[in-house]
Amino acid sequence: MINKLLVVGTMAYDAIETPYGKVEHILGGAATYIAFAASNFKSKIGIISVIGEDFKSEDLNLLINRSVDISGVEIIKGGKTFFWSGKYHSNINFRDTIETQLNVLENFEPKVPKFWTNPKILLLGNLHPAVQLSALNQMANKPELIILDSMNFWMDNFRSILDKVISKIDVLCINDEEALQLSNENSIYNASQSIQNMGPKYVIIKRGENGAMIFYKDKMFLAPAYPLKDVKDPTGAGDSFVGGFSGYLSQQSNISFESMKVALVYASAMASFTVQEFGTHNLQKVDKFVLQNRIDGIQNLTKLKPELINTSEL
Amino acid sequence: MINKLLVVGTMAYDAIETPYGKVEHILGGAATYIAFAASNFKSKIGIISVIGEDFKSEDLNLLINRSVDISGVEIIKGGKTFFWSGKYHSNINFRDTIETQLNVLENFEPKVPKFWTNPKILLLGNLHPAVQLSALNQMANKPELIILDSMNFWMDNFRSILDKVISKIDVLCINDEEALQLSNENSIYNASQSIQNMGPKYVIIKRGENGAMIFYKDKMFLAPAYPLKDVKDPTGAGDSFVGGFSGYLSQQSNISFESMKVALVYASAMASFTVQEFGTHNLQKVDKFVLQNRIDGIQNLTKLKPELINTSEL
Repeated sequence: MINKLLVVGTMAYDAIETPYGKVEHILGGAATYIAFAASNFKSKIGIISVIGEDFKSEDLNLLINRSVDISGVEIIKGGKTFFWSGKYHSNINFRDTIETQLNVLENFEPKVPKFWTNPKILLLGNLHPAVQLSALNQMANKPELIILDSMNFWMDNFRSILDKVISKIDVLCINDEEALQLSNENSIYNASQSIQNMGPKYVIIKRGENGAMIFYKDKMFLAPAYPLKDVKDPTGAGDSFVGGFSGYLSQQSNISFESMKVALVYASAMASFTVQEFGTHNLQKVDKFVLQNRIDGIQNLTKLKPELINTSEL
Repeated sequence: MINKLLVVGTMAYDAIETPYGKVEHILGGAATYIAFAASNFKSKIGIISVIGEDFKSEDLNLLINRSVDISGVEIIKGGKTFFWSGKYHSNINFRDTIETQLNVLENFEPKVPKFWTNPKILLLGNLHPAVQLSALNQMANKPELIILDSMNFWMDNFRSILDKVISKIDVLCINDEEALQLSNENSIYNASQSIQNMGPKYVIIKRGENGAMIFYKDKMFLAPAYPLKDVKDPTGAGDSFVGGFSGYLSQQSNISFESMKVALVYASAMASFTVQEFGTHNLQKVDKFVLQNRIDGIQNLTKLKPELINTSEL
């Protein structure tokens, strides 16, 4: 039986300016980044999304060529695809949104095709929690794992429905500030414990160039970010991250905290590829060789010879 | 022959307010934190500093009881010890300085006793670069390793003399924002390369709760910070960090990049002890048992079973 990973998320066109350059209209959206990252693994990937008639067939073909099933992508006749425009500061960790055109996303009601109602993993990408909940409610059975990616915008404006979604999932993926905000705690550790009481058994805290941590009960694991010479465009880093995480787990026969640790390293690698170039450009070029290289680089960051420190020599 | 670690730094009294409480007048100063951290290792530690007549003998005894040599600590008759007062925000990574009374520090001219002019390691703690340079110039021979800790205040106001000191040292220890500022680069990696061209062979980038990295040529290593339930008072974290780093290295017969990696993990552990309580309170209580425990905790943060990821299973 083939393992199925179902991704609910946006597909978009983006205009992006960073200190390294400017692009006017490139392929973007959470589901797009997720699918590219996850397609490095063996599972069958399906997308639930919505696009307008302006969406280029060559962009759809990029996904189809990576065996991504787009039967759940609704094309709205006469509609225009979701458009986002942003400008990054000279400190590339900060950005301003210049323009958001929801377009076809405004009235999006996800429709999950029957084939996709029983995925091994359901990944609810970063979008409106009402859409996330609707997709979740269309599952025939509880998937083995439900992963939710979210951000402060949804916490600020749709907290009660977001809380409802969070109560039904297994893994929550947010950044450090959002974790503190969501839990009203003062430390990442305490936030990770509080959030586990809201529903998710596992809590992933993303920290950008400082890597990411996953918490399960009182256990924790850190996947460092690979220190890059240049970060040219951070757009889609979080999506690529959760795509790599979910892609790896979807091909595992046994999903455990141990396998999630490995998944977190893959996640970090995928995010690092994305930010090296604008849009999905570099992420699309990943193969096993560059992936192994990056994974080794991340693991070697914390490797000691000999492996363990013994204070008895003090 | 006993290994000698010479520490040049401030001794102070601090008033500190954090979300966890308030203290009016506690023992502080870079040299104090450094000495407490470094005294967990076997080397002989000496301090070059200045204090006023108000400095309590019980506080001096705390250092003496840990075999710290205070013969290089000048006591100014009728003088008052350096005083710093600060208040931390609810996000404890940010603070405001309420008051700085330089007092005896204002005209401090370090005098290195003859016994201390040939240390194995000279650690120039975070203070005025003119003081750092003066102490450095009193060395009889070039120490095996010169470590410099600094911060943005000295970059902003005394850049040219700071540059001169930096040109003479082996290891520079600063935080991530300061590294970008000092090098005028956009990424930590590029900053670490630029700074190596300014003199130091090794560059340590401190990232607070996100750990620290050390760079040597194009090699790099990351010591994670241990995720604590509560950070009660970050004061002295950086000093404890560099104290642990230097203390470990000072007892090594062979100082190499490999031994610096281990030193960085000890450094991270020392910083984590300090921030758990106000002032030096918790740092003073460290013993081999709690140290080994924390070291294991830090190392386990990034440990996988099996150790290595192989992409051939994809």
